[in-house]
Amino acid sequence: MVGAGLSGCLMAVLLARRGCRVRVFERRSDPRSRAADHGRSINLGLSRRGMTALRAAGLLDEVLAHAAPMRGRVVHLPDGGLGFQPYGTSDDQILRSVLRNDLNTVLLDAAEAMPGVRFEFDAKLTAMDKSKATVECLFQTAGGVRRVLSETVIGSDGAFSTVRAQMHRGEPADYHQEFLPWGYKELSIEAGPPDERRTDPEALHVWPADGGLIVAHPNADRSLTGTIFLPLAGPDSFETLRTTEAVSSLLADRFPDLHRLVPDVVEQFLSQPVGHLVTVRTAPWHHDDRVVLLGDACHAVYPFYGQGMNSAFEDCVTLDGCLDRNPDDWAAAFAEYQAIRKPNTDVLADLSAENFIELRDRLASPLFLARKNADLALNRILGNRWVPLYTMISHTTTPYADALRRSRRQNTTLAWLAGAAATGTAAAGAVLLRNLARRVKGK
Amino acid sequence: MVGAGLSGCLMAVLLARRGCRVRVFERRSDPRSRAADHGRSINLGLSRRGMTALRAAGLLDEVLAHAAPMRGRVVHLPDGGLGFQPYGTSDDQILRSVLRNDLNTVLLDAAEAMPGVRFEFDAKLTAMDKSKATVECLFQTAGGVRRVLSETVIGSDGAFSTVRAQMHRGEPADYHQEFLPWGYKELSIEAGPPDERRTDPEALHVWPADGGLIVAHPNADRSLTGTIFLPLAGPDSFETLRTTEAVSSLLADRFPDLHRLVPDVVEQFLSQPVGHLVTVRTAPWHHDDRVVLLGDACHAVYPFYGQGMNSAFEDCVTLDGCLDRNPDDWAAAFAEYQAIRKPNTDVLADLSAENFIELRDRLASPLFLARKNADLALNRILGNRWVPLYTMISHTTTPYADALRRSRRQNTTLAWLAGAAATGTAAAGAVLLRNLARRVKGK
Repeated sequence: MVGAGLSGCLMAVLLARRGCRVRVFERRSDPRSRAADHGRSINLGLSRRGMTALRAAGLLDEVLAHAAPMRGRVVHLPDGGLGFQPYGTSDDQILRSVLRNDLNTVLLDAAEAMPGVRFEFDAKLTAMDKSKATVECLFQTAGGVRRVLSETVIGSDGAFSTVRAQMHRGEPADYHQEFLPWGYKELSIEAGPPDERRTDPEALHVWPADGGLIVAHPNADRSLTGTIFLPLAGPDSFETLRTTEAVSSLLADRFPDLHRLVPDVVEQFLSQPVGHLVTVRTAPWHHDDRVVLLGDACHAVYPFYGQGMNSAFEDCVTLDGCLDRNPDDWAAAFAEYQAIRKPNTDVLADLSAENFIELRDRLASPLFLARKNADLALNRILGNRWVPLYTMISHTTTPYADALRRSRRQNTTLAWLAGAAATGTAAAGAVLLRNLARRVKGK
Repeated sequence: MVGAGLSGCLMAVLLARRGCRVRVFERRSDPRSRAADHGRSINLGLSRRGMTALRAAGLLDEVLAHAAPMRGRVVHLPDGGLGFQPYGTSDDQILRSVLRNDLNTVLLDAAEAMPGVRFEFDAKLTAMDKSKATVECLFQTAGGVRRVLSETVIGSDGAFSTVRAQMHRGEPADYHQEFLPWGYKELSIEAGPPDERRTDPEALHVWPADGGLIVAHPNADRSLTGTIFLPLAGPDSFETLRTTEAVSSLLADRFPDLHRLVPDVVEQFLSQPVGHLVTVRTAPWHHDDRVVLLGDACHAVYPFYGQGMNSAFEDCVTLDGCLDRNPDDWAAAFAEYQAIRKPNTDVLADLSAENFIELRDRLASPLFLARKNADLALNRILGNRWVPLYTMISHTTTPYADALRRSRRQNTTLAWLAGAAATGTAAAGAVLLRNLARRVKGK
């Protein structure tokens, strides 16, 4: 296995449980022996899919011990006002915020404790030959080049996967990489007083703005870790915002409460590197029974639906299920895994791009908030017969593509209902509501 | 400049005319000193765009001396029948078929005759450093590694461009590569008797079939060079067709007249390599004023609209015009060039993919042929107010995106007309026709 990040570690645990010998090579050093990377997104939102996968591996309780609950979104409006949107209608519809480093440590420790699993850090894959009977990998290490032979190579080495590039070399492989014209920087937001809703430690915080966006996750110590998104180039962009005055005035204009919450925000802004955001789609995800990809290596998505890690964990469990069904034919298992997952992660890529627009532009719109509330109200009335898209993505394990199809049906119905309500025909509305309940139930 | 293919040579001529010193590096050997490549598409259709570009460079007459005219398509129907579709309604609406090698030779000779142009063959780009004041390129040559410094590097090195890869390294660049699940092999079809319409040397030949397609261009010696397209994998694919019996029976079944026209078709089929077809879209096309891409390097398309070479030639002329308008600011010229061309080549990529379906599936349909004929008839009646999409793409220099927009407007009107005709309301049809004439004229 190449890549000891989140999905690599989880997959190592699942493979070790079926008796495989697993060696995991990682180009970085051991995260347990160094300070957390700066400039990487260090705070992640665990939703139902991720929690389900961790539970399947017996690791959920340990992870949750490090996590902070998020019960909804606090929206810091451009006019200085504050809004709140609950994530769901019941207590189990909450997300959990966890530090990437804490999560990686739990997973590394768990994998390392399994018999047959061995990690090697500071080992960078430089070449892979998939044509031989056993796959040959060359790793650059402090001690020189190491040659490693294995029956199967699993690429969990991220959006710019070397395993993927080496696997696709000389093949007619589809590959799509698209960068958002916006980048990001990280901001640390200190814990506020206990009754300060603007730093509520049990919520995700969003600052929608015209030409800007901040999203912040809470930490277990009540501080928040924020990410500011701005255009990479053009007016008011990371390229042009280079002086204290320019940054200070832009932040005050777009995010009125930020200066008060983060007194050193301008210094942080000017000292942080700019990160880029990429969507990757590709095919195939595997080569025979010899190479297979996981997570970002086969489907990197923008972070705006908070599903990157969750979908990578779902990959691991799906692949594990495919191995269950095809114990003696890993090529068939890998093909089944791709057939199950790719249509769903393709939909996730679209939803993640759309949610950027939603967070940035629509979250500040009263009409949009009313629509969201109507959605949740219908969910309360109709229960499982009416589930908002966000709820299906974040609080269920309904495959992404199925969730999107169902949401489209529901939206059509919501438009009818709104029409009935607008024309004042309450009776007609009631009939529609009854029909709808039947329709949604039946499908 | 990297790549001495068709667009590289034409651009070298245009640059030399403005007094630039141009060195062209090509990884292959000089095509004038070797037999034509086997397994590359060796016969190309020159349409209006390409001819206009060659005329601008003063090279059209010389090229046409090597070309064979194509006045329309001969369609070899799956039932053994034969159809003919003229390419246009006037004598100047014809295409010219030319051997890639002949064309490349004319262009190489012309470029080499210009002062300041120098070619170096057998020189493969291995690295490029765009960060220095002058761009540094390393070339692998027979005499070892050569280091070359230049103010600007032009990448005309094809769909798998090394210039592009080096230019995009470390940048948030978009890149999309998509392979058709079909591949191709070349077939040589000998000249037939003078009155044999099945090998008419003044037409493009198309064999549409269920699960297969052959396209053939005429040569000046009255022979045809054909390309057979089949699925890469699955039943009746290049993967499974490996025996004389299997190939012979498939060809007899799908392309009834082929065995008679090409007696050794099975031997040819089994001995030829399989080619792959790729669409490439990317951005940016340039880096400051230092690096810029041309042709397949920035927009490889499937060959089914016959516009790959033509659009590459159009790139050269467009870039030349941008240099005219920004003589002292090549970064601005390159940005303008990308802004003008990319929306159009994006449309061409879509049209080229759609035309695969048209050639393969629709060309054999009587309804489709009737629609094509209606389109041409309207063109005859209405002249410039009604121009079929194929005509705009192949016989004009209307930008691809404008052509598509105009065609969509026309199609809407054609549907009205068909409706009027179907309901027998000739009078209403006449009114529509008059309105249409005004509408199309006005836009």
